Amino acid sequence: MTSTELKVTFTPSGRRGTAGPGSTVLDVARELGADIDSVCGGRGICGRCQVTVGSAPGVPASETALSAPGPTETDYRGKRPLVAGQRLSCAAQILEDVVIDVPPESQVHRQVVRKRAEVIAIDVDPVVRLHYIEVSEPTLDDDSSDLGRIQDALEEQWGLTGLTADESLIGTLQPALRQGKWQVTVAIHDGAIITGIWPGFRDVALGVAYDVGSTTVAAHLCDLTSGDVLASAGLMNPQIRFGEDLMSRVSYVMMNPGGEVALTAAVREAMDDLIGTLVSEAGVEREDILEVTVVGNPIMHHLVLGIDPTPLGGAPFALAVDKAVRARASLIDLEVHSGARLYILPLIAGHVGADAAAAVLSEGPHRGDAVQLLVDVGTNAEIVLGSSGRLLAASSPTGPAFEGAQISSGQRAAPGAIERVRVDKDTLEPRFKVIGSDLWSDEDGFIDSIEKTGVTGICGSGIIEVIAELYLAGVISQDGVIYGEHSRIVEDGRTKSYVLGDGSPQILVTQNDVRAIQLAKAALYAGVKLLMGHLDVDAVDEIRLAGAFGSHIDTKYAMVLGLIPDCDLEKVSAAGNAAGTGSMMALLSREARAEIERVATEIEKIETATEPKFQELFVGAMGIPHASDPFPKLGGAVALPERKDPTGRPERRRRRNPGSTT
Amino acid sequence: MTSTELKVTFTPSGRRGTAGPGSTVLDVARELGADIDSVCGGRGICGRCQVTVGSAPGVPASETALSAPGPTETDYRGKRPLVAGQRLSCAAQILEDVVIDVPPESQVHRQVVRKRAEVIAIDVDPVVRLHYIEVSEPTLDDDSSDLGRIQDALEEQWGLTGLTADESLIGTLQPALRQGKWQVTVAIHDGAIITGIWPGFRDVALGVAYDVGSTTVAAHLCDLTSGDVLASAGLMNPQIRFGEDLMSRVSYVMMNPGGEVALTAAVREAMDDLIGTLVSEAGVEREDILEVTVVGNPIMHHLVLGIDPTPLGGAPFALAVDKAVRARASLIDLEVHSGARLYILPLIAGHVGADAAAAVLSEGPHRGDAVQLLVDVGTNAEIVLGSSGRLLAASSPTGPAFEGAQISSGQRAAPGAIERVRVDKDTLEPRFKVIGSDLWSDEDGFIDSIEKTGVTGICGSGIIEVIAELYLAGVISQDGVIYGEHSRIVEDGRTKSYVLGDGSPQILVTQNDVRAIQLAKAALYAGVKLLMGHLDVDAVDEIRLAGAFGSHIDTKYAMVLGLIPDCDLEKVSAAGNAAGTGSMMALLSREARAEIERVATEIEKIETATEPKFQELFVGAMGIPHASDPFPKLGGAVALPERKDPTGRPERRRRRNPGSTT
Repeated sequence: MTSTELKVTFTPSGRRGTAGPGSTVLDVARELGADIDSVCGGRGICGRCQVTVGSAPGVPASETALSAPGPTETDYRGKRPLVAGQRLSCAAQILEDVVIDVPPESQVHRQVVRKRAEVIAIDVDPVVRLHYIEVSEPTLDDDSSDLGRIQDALEEQWGLTGLTADESLIGTLQPALRQGKWQVTVAIHDGAIITGIWPGFRDVALGVAYDVGSTTVAAHLCDLTSGDVLASAGLMNPQIRFGEDLMSRVSYVMMNPGGEVALTAAVREAMDDLIGTLVSEAGVEREDILEVTVVGNPIMHHLVLGIDPTPLGGAPFALAVDKAVRARASLIDLEVHSGARLYILPLIAGHVGADAAAAVLSEGPHRGDAVQLLVDVGTNAEIVLGSSGRLLAASSPTGPAFEGAQISSGQRAAPGAIERVRVDKDTLEPRFKVIGSDLWSDEDGFIDSIEKTGVTGICGSGIIEVIAELYLAGVISQDGVIYGEHSRIVEDGRTKSYVLGDGSPQILVTQNDVRAIQLAKAALYAGVKLLMGHLDVDAVDEIRLAGAFGSHIDTKYAMVLGLIPDCDLEKVSAAGNAAGTGSMMALLSREARAEIERVATEIEKIETATEPKFQELFVGAMGIPHASDPFPKLGGAVALPERKDPTGRPERRRRRNPGSTT
Repeated sequence: MTSTELKVTFTPSGRRGTAGPGSTVLDVARELGADIDSVCGGRGICGRCQVTVGSAPGVPASETALSAPGPTETDYRGKRPLVAGQRLSCAAQILEDVVIDVPPESQVHRQVVRKRAEVIAIDVDPVVRLHYIEVSEPTLDDDSSDLGRIQDALEEQWGLTGLTADESLIGTLQPALRQGKWQVTVAIHDGAIITGIWPGFRDVALGVAYDVGSTTVAAHLCDLTSGDVLASAGLMNPQIRFGEDLMSRVSYVMMNPGGEVALTAAVREAMDDLIGTLVSEAGVEREDILEVTVVGNPIMHHLVLGIDPTPLGGAPFALAVDKAVRARASLIDLEVHSGARLYILPLIAGHVGADAAAAVLSEGPHRGDAVQLLVDVGTNAEIVLGSSGRLLAASSPTGPAFEGAQISSGQRAAPGAIERVRVDKDTLEPRFKVIGSDLWSDEDGFIDSIEKTGVTGICGSGIIEVIAELYLAGVISQDGVIYGEHSRIVEDGRTKSYVLGDGSPQILVTQNDVRAIQLAKAALYAGVKLLMGHLDVDAVDEIRLAGAFGSHIDTKYAMVLGLIPDCDLEKVSAAGNAAGTGSMMALLSREARAEIERVATEIEKIETATEPKFQELFVGAMGIPHASDPFPKLGGAVALPERKDPTGRPERRRRRNPGSTT
């Protein structure tokens, strides 16, 4: 260090060192390893590198610490106009000792707070980065090719070496260079491969995060640089025409060998249709999409990839592929940029899918010390339990009862379905809410509000609530038997049913319905207890209920029925669309991909089918509330509060939330 | 080494070491690094590992050196039955000190001698290897996937690690494993990526080597393991409908922007059609083809890849891509195995293409000490000069005269074209041969033999011969002027012509024709001289004339006219289809790919257009024979011998040789 050198400190990174007078802030940041974003490479075009002068003990903010704004800054006409005090770090020169503040939006690695069904912070560690380069023109004396000169420019202007060009790019290098007059922007995927090239300067790199559920396919269009969500959309999974639930779709393939081709085509078409919706909503082009991530349960995962799912329909539930898949987006027939890449999160086990992996990424049980129980209920309940020390996963065969299947009046959560129920403890009269209406059935205008659909059946959250309410009202015993004499209790042969809806069709809660829910909840509870045994804990610190079921059921009723183990009610919450959030995290962050690949390998898989203990726990969990976990505080007389939507948004809108999948 | 260990020597590798009694020959070979092939991994299925007992000083061939043939060998029913003395090295156990002979056909790296237009030895270093594996079945206790268990089997049974599966394979792993009852054969490309999987044992891995010329597209179907050529086929390049020669096709694109799409589609379709011909001829399937290599001049190279070739139509002749291209075969629309890979050899410079690189690989000037001149004449002459010490390359703008274009009666080499000419020194009467007939024009039956075509024109080799003959007969001066009075010499205005054919159409050799050939040959000669100057040599040790032109012209006439520099006539020869051979070498050998990529980078490119010396040399080379290189031994009275076909095959058949491209 010579005496003329100046002391420079960058915040918040804390990087510090010395610089010669007149060095630009950006050059010094690069030298010291401070994180400042740039697409144009310091040419005063992109405006990504804006900083302010900060202060530190002994180094007050000085107006003369940086050179006065020159023409690059005063003429700057970027997308984000320079406001007072903001400087382009590529233009501002360091003249005195200085502290430079780098705001989050000028950092390559930044944290964005996502506010959808849930509030979650996502660290952006871009999978794709754009680099503007000025490529030397070909001359007779220079025998290098267009690609060679692009590689040279990336090395000289960005210090990037060893880059290869995607094969889909080979035909586009030449016209882009000539159209851009030897100035182009390239997209570099994962620091290794050039996947896009455009003439001139460009600042758009988008990606789509999918959450492919059995019922709904959801997609989010994100800006890969800022992490902003530009649009979200959802569609019914068109595979439903081959079977309402997962197992019926597997049966379809079993009975129609080769039928997976139709199932694959159906879901891929829906995924591609969603891109059309997203780009139209955001006013962008399909070609702007450079990255795609997908999560889904093992059967959806296999079908998206064109793999026959029938081995997943029976023991030993053998997966074809379980590690993360890196491929081209064209592999699954998505019409996006020709160099676009596909990333599918790893599966955890035969019944614990990429959706569960994504939920783990989102909820982060492995990042904390608290013992977290993360449950995603579908045809199978995917259960993850543990903390930073150790993480276990299992799948429990709940069957589709929680989704309204195998219930006499059950149906999917759709307009017309009863979703909330209250039973008067004295009169045993019910009142309920139906999807599509904001009114309770005893409120004025209810009949008019459901004119279009009528009351068609009862969905998963409704059946949970009515059985819990009937238990609290004393109509159902701890053993799950419907008993008593009342005008609402009808008898058919040897069993009784409760009449929930008097219209047409009549909505009954039958003894078999109660048994189906008992079986499902016992399976879920037994799976959780099995993991608790393996982890050697008696209680869990927090419970996160992921997915649509987790968002729609009232956690208190879940505890009344004994779906989940004892836990401070304050610590039980819906995780919202955790799988979709995890998909988005993998879309935006290389580190997130590395993290979930590591965690998915480390998670201990417990196979419920081969654990003798599971059967024992299952039988023991049939009662309401199960014998081992009585809830005296939730006795028959307790007044349950009205359910509050955890998102705080109106229920009608949340129903349409494309992020909700089952 | 303990006293019980036995001494084992493998020939021809010379690998030696010790082994415990009872070790199998294959295990010991692997331990000592001796090269023995195997697909089945030592299970007595493939028969690839056959060896014999040899001898060495002090180690006589002993019948008891190996265990007596057991059931694996006596029951062996492989494709190559065991003949007396042949042993399966996976079954035979070593009982005494022994010398093991590994015949070439049992080596992974072997040398095959190719005998087509030329005899050449190709070292096989397989780009694709097949490995038979027994994969463990999935169980409830094993949470790995099909792919994971395949990777485990490859590591356990073959010691292969770090392999990834091609994305096209993801959907096929599962059915292959189940159909093969957990026994499958996988194809591994370049030691890194699994590109194919088949149920059970399989021993077929094929590849196609293309040579895409402006006139002809040729393809050879090869067994990637043995190096055998199973079939060869050729087609006219359908791009001819867009322009006869290269430059007219570039002009087509210049005048029809986007026209390269049609040119690309045309050549790719021809390439795919050839696969149909090849697999039908060899009785194999398109799906058996796992590798494809392509060579071609820069314009063909770009068009095959879908790149607009117009920048190659003028200075600075900028290539879009020059390094070797590794991609999927599907990139160029070939219907072969879905995991098949495409390899395109590197280009050397803007006018020196992958065909020249392939010719270098085939002729190997860089492998010897002799100064070799390698010339491929097309619209441009691609010239390579040098030896192991230093290699130079240039392209010289000969124009299409050598291909019969710009010649008054010129035409492509096709039935009806005059290809050989003799002129009587006394009478000046000509006699000639026409493509499609084996007879000279003065032989009985000639007229009948060309009944179908007639005499339609004169092709490149014909125009060379007639001008050389007219020079030797004194009709053309050293300056290239047609002079004299004779019934065969007609005058049109200020210049004279020689009447070669009296029929209809009349075939004339005009003064302009002579000038066109003078310009072309001066360009070629000047290019060669320019490189000789750079290499600082006065003479070359050997001359190899590649391509169709090189095969068809009589090298002596080439020297009479001064196309090529002074050289011992014995050392001047046709290289045949050197580009096609080089394509095949790259198909069969990883080492060959590495070699040409290294050499292509090391070759010094000389740009004729910017070398002032080139113009000077060009002007000096216009005379016949050029002033700087008189050929007194080839004076007017010398009797030139009849041309002999270097392949020794009838000319009619050679004309159809699909390996010939221009």
